[in-house]
Amino acid sequence: MFDLYIANKNYSSWSLRPWVLMKALEIPFNEHLMPFEGGTGASHATFTRFSPSGLVPCLVEVTDEGELAVWDSLAIVEYLAEQHANVWPSDKAARAWARSATAEMHSSFSALRGDCPMNCGMRVKLNSLSANLKADLARVDALWQQGLERFGGPFLAGETFSAVDAFYAPVAFRMQTFSLPVSEKSRAYVERLLALPAMQAWYQAALEEPWRESLHEADTLKNGTVTADHRKA
Amino acid sequence: MFDLYIANKNYSSWSLRPWVLMKALEIPFNEHLMPFEGGTGASHATFTRFSPSGLVPCLVEVTDEGELAVWDSLAIVEYLAEQHANVWPSDKAARAWARSATAEMHSSFSALRGDCPMNCGMRVKLNSLSANLKADLARVDALWQQGLERFGGPFLAGETFSAVDAFYAPVAFRMQTFSLPVSEKSRAYVERLLALPAMQAWYQAALEEPWRESLHEADTLKNGTVTADHRKA
Ligand SMILES: N[C@@H](CCC(=O)N[C@@H](CS)C(=O)NCC(=O)O)C(=O)O
Ligand SMILES: N[C@@H](CCC(=O)N[C@@H](CS)C(=O)NCC(=O)O)C(=O)O
Repeated sequence: MFDLYIANKNYSSWSLRPWVLMKALEIPFNEHLMPFEGGTGASHATFTRFSPSGLVPCLVEVTDEGELAVWDSLAIVEYLAEQHANVWPSDKAARAWARSATAEMHSSFSALRGDCPMNCGMRVKLNSLSANLKADLARVDALWQQGLERFGGPFLAGETFSAVDAFYAPVAFRMQTFSLPVSEKSRAYVERLLALPAMQAWYQAALEEPWRESLHEADTLKNGTVTADHRKA
Repeated sequence: MFDLYIANKNYSSWSLRPWVLMKALEIPFNEHLMPFEGGTGASHATFTRFSPSGLVPCLVEVTDEGELAVWDSLAIVEYLAEQHANVWPSDKAARAWARSATAEMHSSFSALRGDCPMNCGMRVKLNSLSANLKADLARVDALWQQGLERFGGPFLAGETFSAVDAFYAPVAFRMQTFSLPVSEKSRAYVERLLALPAMQAWYQAALEEPWRESLHEADTLKNGTVTADHRKA
């Protein structure tokens, strides 16, 4: 059995990746939600109890040789792919494309991450889009259109939801929060992601969370103004 | 047969990862060195001819279904692992650890990357180490010591050089250039990496390169002074 450690659903974009993948593929796990303790790096000491890097997500599996911790969202995906079908597309070319797009997400798009932090319940009007943000958006848009066209949709690498969709799932929430401009085709893909039962379940849970992190909140509004806050608690 | 597109050996840390892995594992490939055309992003248009992201490294394989491009260093590693032994350790726990450490390198350590750019031939005395750089170094050091102890060395995940060593190979050059302080055990590991035939071959080729990129050079010296430049050309 798997134990998956994550942080706040409203804020933790890296946590969403393995969570939504495991839900979509119906891989059972025990969820452990560890709320952030305030500010970047503040939760490090607590998280280190289960995660060697002091970061979430972290997947822990009890095996015959003891407890095995996998402490990075992309490593978790590859660890799961060794044991479960459909983590990656079965077609070789689709799989190579999906892995490239996933690894690119893992190491790039710093403007998209920095300018548009994940904050599921909020709606924000940006004052302006930086040149770097525009470049990141153009790249995401081109990549999505390429995948959807080449593999026939409705998901990025073909007919079924796979790890590459899970890695762009946080981008769907960012686009919803900040009304980011993309092509018709990409817009439709965002809607498709947001409508998935697993994404809906994450979103609803995010809205119910009682925690407000002042740093995350300030970061969300550093270049814009609130137009709505759908959080209930 | 594989075609591997890379940039300047003196500067391109991401290019080094698949290159040194393929050399160490004796996976044959045609090397295509595309020198940077000056400045960040300046080579994008040229690189787009073979790499969908406009970035290097990019691995291209001609298969029965056509040409397949894998455009990110981590995706290249997983693509190779499907066809070649020893890309990852064969032991399950070592492999999970190696994948976690590799994916962590892929997405983190921004201070180490930013403060200490790869510039193989140069030797630099830093004026000071930023708090973020110190934190990154402490994390690398802890991670390396953990791997070396847990799996018995001489490499990070055990007896043989694997993808996780390839991903930290650029860090070895950075440590050499900037004389970064680490533990005895990590220092010895750096020496071991630098002495590998594949690393020596890369290093010697870097020293022979005629190109000087003003942005890369300025970046190398933004927080320190040159103590030596071993480049020949
Ligand atoms: N490369 C890691 C990054 C994980 C990461 O940065 N996690 C953040 C939360 S989304 C964290 O744990 N931060 C701890 C803190 O802010 O105290 C992954 O993909 O899993
Ligand atoms: N995530 C990519 C990053 C590759 C990357 O940033 N490559 C740089 C060179 S090391 C590049 O191609 N830059 C193009 C330019 O500066 O024009 C990977 O791991 O392969």
